[in-house]
Amino acid sequence: MKIALAQINPTVGDFAGNTRKILEYAARAGEQGVDLAVFPELAVCGYPPADFLEKDAFVARAEEAIAEIAAWTGEPGRPAILCGTVMPATSPVGKQVRNVAALLSGGKVSFVQQKMLLPFYDVFDEQRYFEPAAQQALTCVDGQPLAITVCEDAWNDKGFWPRQLYRVDPVENLMRQWESQPKEVAGRQRIIVNISASPYWQGKPQVRQKMLAALAERHGAFVAMVNQVGGNDSLVFDGSSLVIRPDGQLVAQAASFAEDLVFFDTEDGEAAAIDPMVDEIASTWKALVLGTRDYVRKCGFKKVLVGLSGGIDSALVAAIAVEALGAENVLGVGMPSEYSSLGSIEDARRLAKNLGVRFELLPIHDVFAQYQSTLKRLFEGTPFGLAEENLQSRIRGTLLMGLSNKFGALVLTTGNKSEMSVGYCTLYGDMVGALAVIGDVMKTKVYALSRYANREREVIPRATIEKAPSAELRPEQLDTDSLPPYEVLDPILEAYVGRYCSAEEIAEEQGIDVGLVRSLLKLVERSEYKRQQAALVLKVTRKSFGMGRRFPIAVKVQV
Amino acid sequence: MKIALAQINPTVGDFAGNTRKILEYAARAGEQGVDLAVFPELAVCGYPPADFLEKDAFVARAEEAIAEIAAWTGEPGRPAILCGTVMPATSPVGKQVRNVAALLSGGKVSFVQQKMLLPFYDVFDEQRYFEPAAQQALTCVDGQPLAITVCEDAWNDKGFWPRQLYRVDPVENLMRQWESQPKEVAGRQRIIVNISASPYWQGKPQVRQKMLAALAERHGAFVAMVNQVGGNDSLVFDGSSLVIRPDGQLVAQAASFAEDLVFFDTEDGEAAAIDPMVDEIASTWKALVLGTRDYVRKCGFKKVLVGLSGGIDSALVAAIAVEALGAENVLGVGMPSEYSSLGSIEDARRLAKNLGVRFELLPIHDVFAQYQSTLKRLFEGTPFGLAEENLQSRIRGTLLMGLSNKFGALVLTTGNKSEMSVGYCTLYGDMVGALAVIGDVMKTKVYALSRYANREREVIPRATIEKAPSAELRPEQLDTDSLPPYEVLDPILEAYVGRYCSAEEIAEEQGIDVGLVRSLLKLVERSEYKRQQAALVLKVTRKSFGMGRRFPIAVKVQV
Repeated sequence: MKIALAQINPTVGDFAGNTRKILEYAARAGEQGVDLAVFPELAVCGYPPADFLEKDAFVARAEEAIAEIAAWTGEPGRPAILCGTVMPATSPVGKQVRNVAALLSGGKVSFVQQKMLLPFYDVFDEQRYFEPAAQQALTCVDGQPLAITVCEDAWNDKGFWPRQLYRVDPVENLMRQWESQPKEVAGRQRIIVNISASPYWQGKPQVRQKMLAALAERHGAFVAMVNQVGGNDSLVFDGSSLVIRPDGQLVAQAASFAEDLVFFDTEDGEAAAIDPMVDEIASTWKALVLGTRDYVRKCGFKKVLVGLSGGIDSALVAAIAVEALGAENVLGVGMPSEYSSLGSIEDARRLAKNLGVRFELLPIHDVFAQYQSTLKRLFEGTPFGLAEENLQSRIRGTLLMGLSNKFGALVLTTGNKSEMSVGYCTLYGDMVGALAVIGDVMKTKVYALSRYANREREVIPRATIEKAPSAELRPEQLDTDSLPPYEVLDPILEAYVGRYCSAEEIAEEQGIDVGLVRSLLKLVERSEYKRQQAALVLKVTRKSFGMGRRFPIAVKVQV
Repeated sequence: MKIALAQINPTVGDFAGNTRKILEYAARAGEQGVDLAVFPELAVCGYPPADFLEKDAFVARAEEAIAEIAAWTGEPGRPAILCGTVMPATSPVGKQVRNVAALLSGGKVSFVQQKMLLPFYDVFDEQRYFEPAAQQALTCVDGQPLAITVCEDAWNDKGFWPRQLYRVDPVENLMRQWESQPKEVAGRQRIIVNISASPYWQGKPQVRQKMLAALAERHGAFVAMVNQVGGNDSLVFDGSSLVIRPDGQLVAQAASFAEDLVFFDTEDGEAAAIDPMVDEIASTWKALVLGTRDYVRKCGFKKVLVGLSGGIDSALVAAIAVEALGAENVLGVGMPSEYSSLGSIEDARRLAKNLGVRFELLPIHDVFAQYQSTLKRLFEGTPFGLAEENLQSRIRGTLLMGLSNKFGALVLTTGNKSEMSVGYCTLYGDMVGALAVIGDVMKTKVYALSRYANREREVIPRATIEKAPSAELRPEQLDTDSLPPYEVLDPILEAYVGRYCSAEEIAEEQGIDVGLVRSLLKLVERSEYKRQQAALVLKVTRKSFGMGRRFPIAVKVQV
């Protein structure tokens, strides 16, 4: 059987555009004479549609789209299509819609497999929307039986995971059904198809491949997984669709972080020459580039603004933006105050030159002085402090938003995950923006990514990489005035924010005084209110700030 | 049997404080000779604890607290305690914790009923955290059998709801068990106890009472429901704990929006003289007052800042803040620009005087002029527009945050739900603040609440109530320049934001041109990015902005 993996990048809610794309890929697959073209989970409406699933009109549009795609398969010689979509539930009890893989052939919907395992952890809310499948069934395409699963359905294998999240294993159930078929069916090559919308985080593509290989070996089956690609808000889907042979060998793989159309034949099944997975830093870079490009474009924008301080965070964000959108669509804005060093302005200017982006300088001294004069009577007798520091940051945010409103460009936020963790950032100041491009990247990883940005030539100036980090909001300020060095801080934050370790566990693990750990964790707890008003963070780790990490603010918590 | 309903206001994560409060209420109940004191769902840790439930240390602290409370019941003559808490799950599959009602008596945990129905809609995420009960059992206190349920367990009655969300009815199951008991048990008075954390929205207390009365009648049982009270972030729990007799009559009721300790005796069961439910506007007012007070105090603050424009929204928020926190803890700040009318400043000043709050005037002309001068080169040749309007709003936000940083007071945001729906508000401008006090109140309801604020004397100046709404960001600006009158707009928004009606349904329902409706709904869709960076909104309707309404931003949606 010849199958095409159609790894597409749909836009949430764009039924017309997504349908057009599906038919275009199906036609290309048909030209290669495939029997079946497979598309990702919820490809018709895009993933994740979130509460749009609660709107009847949205579900009705998905049904119209599926009818149109099904009709296309009616012409002789065209391949069957397996495609993810939302359908109304059939049960009078429970949730009102189902997440399904619909098999379209001969001009109609010929089979529907409803998703059984609905993830409801981290960024996933599927039990909020979908009624789970009560049962499953095998289906056939041109006489070849297929076991069809939707994403999470393949993620509960007893042999692979130390702890099961669900009581059933849909793959095992389907394989048991396979065995009980008449001999002429049971004897056919086993094929498990999995349609997915499986977002990227560091290490995830490797886990996915290992897990699917274990499945292939355990069940003696081909496993073909088609994953969505593209950025949708915080989530970046890496694609990396693949086919694994019954012996666990990879025989086909689609691109990572790009649309692709890949073919394989179960009769053939030769281990192909496949690119090794790129390394973690390169993957992260690609994820951030794709996430930035798709967010900006799917929001209907072309241009972005980045405040360039001369520091490494804004330099990295600008470099990512240029790769995502082109230098002509990025405007760098330097906004020095009296506490900015001359070197910083020079570094910002050099970065802009290296990147080939337009650079504008808007000094904030005069506006800052005017604010201080307006507030003088009320601030009288108080020392220069946090209020004055934040004022500078908020002036910069206001200037960027002024340019954004005037010229229709999105502001990219430049804060990193270390800063966002401890609240070393100013709400309505440097936190201003639509997208926190590196909000899930710890400062130590910001350095690694910056070196990656410079892999071919110097893009980020060496001085920017080498100087000691500083917010430059008061004379001679350094990040290390208030925080430990990032090599010490980042592992502590990773353990607390990412793995929910306790202060005692972290002190033990890192060999650091528990009092110091506790004082840092208190900063994390105290800055939750800032994170809840932050720009969307592009997720590249298992646990990022945003929808996948839900903490209340008005609490009294012991760390 | 004599039972105390202990309607307390816990703080999320404050195990020491919550335990102290539970023991204090239990002791007061003991003085009245009750057999059992009942506390709300998750009373030990506060509700909703959200992702804290995924931290082992948090769950361990809840276990310590329960052990301490259980030990208290060991002294002779003390009542048993029924209390909500989190416990580790016992199953090797599935979620790691359980939401339970723990019966504490004789110094130990004598019975545990795990919650069976886990809500996963609107603001509820319980399937994200909890393993549901696989079964239930009756228990006894002093020989009296009790059917114990946790919140949602009582909300799936076939006779009451047109559509069931769940396949089981835990109350029906328990009543069936009751029937199959030995005659001396089965013949005892039926008592259903429900511990809840059931947040307020308009009409909810009435639905809750009606639903529980239907349950009492259907099963011939006393129903005693103890609800949490207090504000936790966006949610306000109204309390309104109650006891209903087997004939559906209310026989006891605790206060709404305040802590309370109420007693009842099943032997007695006389219909008590009970205050009628307050009306919707009065309830909403109380919810907003309690929500504001608890948010500010549970965050560790005493004082708040409100920008007073002379308009009705900020006037209402200031009036609510004064009732919540006392006039001495509210600072009103007027920040006129060249487009503010003299009348507006006078109205703001009069409001402050009526409320007895300090008022400061910080004109923004000079800072505005300085920004324009800084941006002049880049803005050259463009007309005065949105960028300049928003600048003024952002200067005000920056000034308020400066005062907040300097003096340690929280900023209250003053935007209403109509504005937030259509995006008639400035991100990092008037949207600045920790809490959007009236962010779930449509403009037409803002008027109703303002009249309520004036019920005893003029607090909000008549001129503020009577003048035409205006943002005053350009000469002679009126809200009706860009929007229909609020009497027309609000029902459209309520249908779209609150009930997910389509443009066609709204046009039909409201008798309005579908083109106009569509143009307004596009504004709603286009401003989702603003709402995702908004301050927490106090929820007072079935569908408010925030955690209970989850829409993606980078979408292409047809309205």
